[in-house]
Amino acid sequence: MKTSKEINIDKKNQFGAEILCIGSEILLGNIVNTNSQWIAEQLAILGIPHFRQTVIGDNPARLKEAILESSNRSQILITTGGLGPTPDDITTKIIADAFNTPLQQRNNILMDLKNKMKNKYSKLSESQKKQSLLPKGAKIINNYSGTAPGIIWSPKDNFTIITFPGVPSELKEMWRKEASNWLINNNFSKKIISSKVLHFAGISESLLADKIPHLLKANNPTVATYASTGEVKIRITAKGESLEETNRSIKPIEKELTKLTGLKCFGVDNTTLEEVVIKLLLSRKETIAVAESCTGGGIGSKLTKIPGSSKIFYGGVIAYNNSIKQDILEVPEEIINTHGAVSKQVVEAMAKGVQKKFKASWAISVSGIAGPTGGSKLKPVGLVNFCIKGPKTLITWEERFGSNKTREDIQKLSVLNALDRLRLSIIMEN
Amino acid sequence: MKTSKEINIDKKNQFGAEILCIGSEILLGNIVNTNSQWIAEQLAILGIPHFRQTVIGDNPARLKEAILESSNRSQILITTGGLGPTPDDITTKIIADAFNTPLQQRNNILMDLKNKMKNKYSKLSESQKKQSLLPKGAKIINNYSGTAPGIIWSPKDNFTIITFPGVPSELKEMWRKEASNWLINNNFSKKIISSKVLHFAGISESLLADKIPHLLKANNPTVATYASTGEVKIRITAKGESLEETNRSIKPIEKELTKLTGLKCFGVDNTTLEEVVIKLLLSRKETIAVAESCTGGGIGSKLTKIPGSSKIFYGGVIAYNNSIKQDILEVPEEIINTHGAVSKQVVEAMAKGVQKKFKASWAISVSGIAGPTGGSKLKPVGLVNFCIKGPKTLITWEERFGSNKTREDIQKLSVLNALDRLRLSIIMEN
Repeated sequence: MKTSKEINIDKKNQFGAEILCIGSEILLGNIVNTNSQWIAEQLAILGIPHFRQTVIGDNPARLKEAILESSNRSQILITTGGLGPTPDDITTKIIADAFNTPLQQRNNILMDLKNKMKNKYSKLSESQKKQSLLPKGAKIINNYSGTAPGIIWSPKDNFTIITFPGVPSELKEMWRKEASNWLINNNFSKKIISSKVLHFAGISESLLADKIPHLLKANNPTVATYASTGEVKIRITAKGESLEETNRSIKPIEKELTKLTGLKCFGVDNTTLEEVVIKLLLSRKETIAVAESCTGGGIGSKLTKIPGSSKIFYGGVIAYNNSIKQDILEVPEEIINTHGAVSKQVVEAMAKGVQKKFKASWAISVSGIAGPTGGSKLKPVGLVNFCIKGPKTLITWEERFGSNKTREDIQKLSVLNALDRLRLSIIMEN
Repeated sequence: MKTSKEINIDKKNQFGAEILCIGSEILLGNIVNTNSQWIAEQLAILGIPHFRQTVIGDNPARLKEAILESSNRSQILITTGGLGPTPDDITTKIIADAFNTPLQQRNNILMDLKNKMKNKYSKLSESQKKQSLLPKGAKIINNYSGTAPGIIWSPKDNFTIITFPGVPSELKEMWRKEASNWLINNNFSKKIISSKVLHFAGISESLLADKIPHLLKANNPTVATYASTGEVKIRITAKGESLEETNRSIKPIEKELTKLTGLKCFGVDNTTLEEVVIKLLLSRKETIAVAESCTGGGIGSKLTKIPGSSKIFYGGVIAYNNSIKQDILEVPEEIINTHGAVSKQVVEAMAKGVQKKFKASWAISVSGIAGPTGGSKLKPVGLVNFCIKGPKTLITWEERFGSNKTREDIQKLSVLNALDRLRLSIIMEN
């Protein structure tokens, strides 16, 4: 495989695939372009390098320009959309125009269109017939569930266009039944690309990146970090001749990463924190209850998303109002009056209260200021107190997530932080 | 490969906006590019013509090429992604390079980055500092919830680049607070496209569509229905010279829709069911508590997402385990033994129990089988019982969401169904 440097210097050597999605509804923001993502994934599975995605509206001049540009840059152009019978379906005609090739009526497609009509006695309209006009020399991709066929066509050396309708289900079926085989049989599918995702908690993306500068510079496998609110992950992506080969090259990198990050790494691929916590408790045959103030049920809601959580999750108290903290969780009134509802003393009493009431092995409690109002200089928005009480554990801590954060982010960060410390506490207990 | 000069014949007529999303994870098919869709929608709202979307990986040469191409074709290039601290975040540097402009360290950003650090005494790492390097002359777009700022920069006549981070929540906030105003103040916003969304509950998309065939055919404004799990909405979109004009044409359509659908329509634009419930309770000075089994805290979590909910939401009990239903909510053991935990009798006792314990005006309770296991022929997965107890109201009901649904969907549908019936019950109480 060529490196990116070679590709760019040697402009005559067209390389890799591009995706061109055609449709004004995408440019208007009416729909999310999920076709691009799906095709990109398929290209990665086949190991076909893919360097650009483009979206163009139903405009002849701009579409032609985009097709010609791509024909000078890539080996394969995959298009979606614009194959249907309506006047704004212009893809096939513009592709033929771009390479000065006439359209030909294909009788087998006419037959197919006729067979697909509900009423066998009615005639195909002119607009329906339009779908049977394909560039001279183009191979047909049959449409199994819809009407408009696609094409595989090489209008010039080292450049092939493959077209699909915009309807995702039709596209997928046509890809699986015909296009993917064509790509394999014509030797475009060279190497396998496979990847593994590692999930982290309790570390920022930049701190994580600073720990592994040598890995981030690596070439095959490549290592990249990603972050969203409260979540950090690393993707290891390897290229190779086979799945065994890619797995073999991912393994040592994964090992090094987990060694460098220790308990910060809580799982791979689709693992979630709540899943890890539930599994740990199940393996120890221990139970848990929650006492939630500012998260309002968010921890319970996460834990119960996992099938089988009923075996270890007893439930909890959403103690949003201070009176509930006193009445149900038996937090002494003087503690609230002396230290405030958002304090280490109160979360400790909440955890102890819920653990006792619910007769659970573990209890976790949260009380904080999610904002946007209710903060003070001493106790600003974003300040959250936590307590975990286990068979032997008792820890309380506070986080300051920052008063610039939204209410939603503070609640989300609180839930993730609680689950992560719970995970670590359970691991540390014996 | 053609250079950008050759591609664009009429360079003098640059027009409209393009979107360029940067990130190898998009090309690998790891994530769906929702940022493009969101920005496209915002451009439509502002009436800024938008002709092309492109995705490029974290590759310097290809990124530079894409930027230069766009600079010869469009007036505005909006980019997302690649602004963070890691080595694969290259957007700002490549933009500066493309127009032979040096990067300058901005002290106000350094200060901002320092302020956003959790530990005020630790130092900014070199990779963190990278985010403060911006092209000379570029205006800053502040990042309110994350770290990496964006820029608004015109490196040449009639061409402006606006950059955003890839994190959707950061992007949206930066657009709303700064970029959108800049576009309006600099006269890019021309013909107005504006839309209004109506939200519905307790009605399916197809039933709703059947009520309004004449409206779905209309041209300006257009009317379209959308649906996702438990949520149905209608978007009315109008084009016009001014906001007054579009509002004037939307109003009668909105009126007709709400007349035809009555209480099924619960709000417009960004309104949520939980927000409506909280507002109703606030206006009546009434309070609420929840007793949740299969939703595990999901109703409480939704209600507490709304700022000010603490005034009317007392909290609740997550009674996941049957012993909790008895011990904390005082559901008599014989009711559970006779009718089962998922029964009208049990949810009624749960609602009464939590209303009494929490001294709340309203109580809502849920108990059901979220699956994937635990169902029987008589009580299949997807069966959920509910009860609402108000000052004068007492209703129990059951829903069968279908055993083909996922655990997550059954939990989500239960929460939305509970909130909608709560809304209707409060309205009916008068």
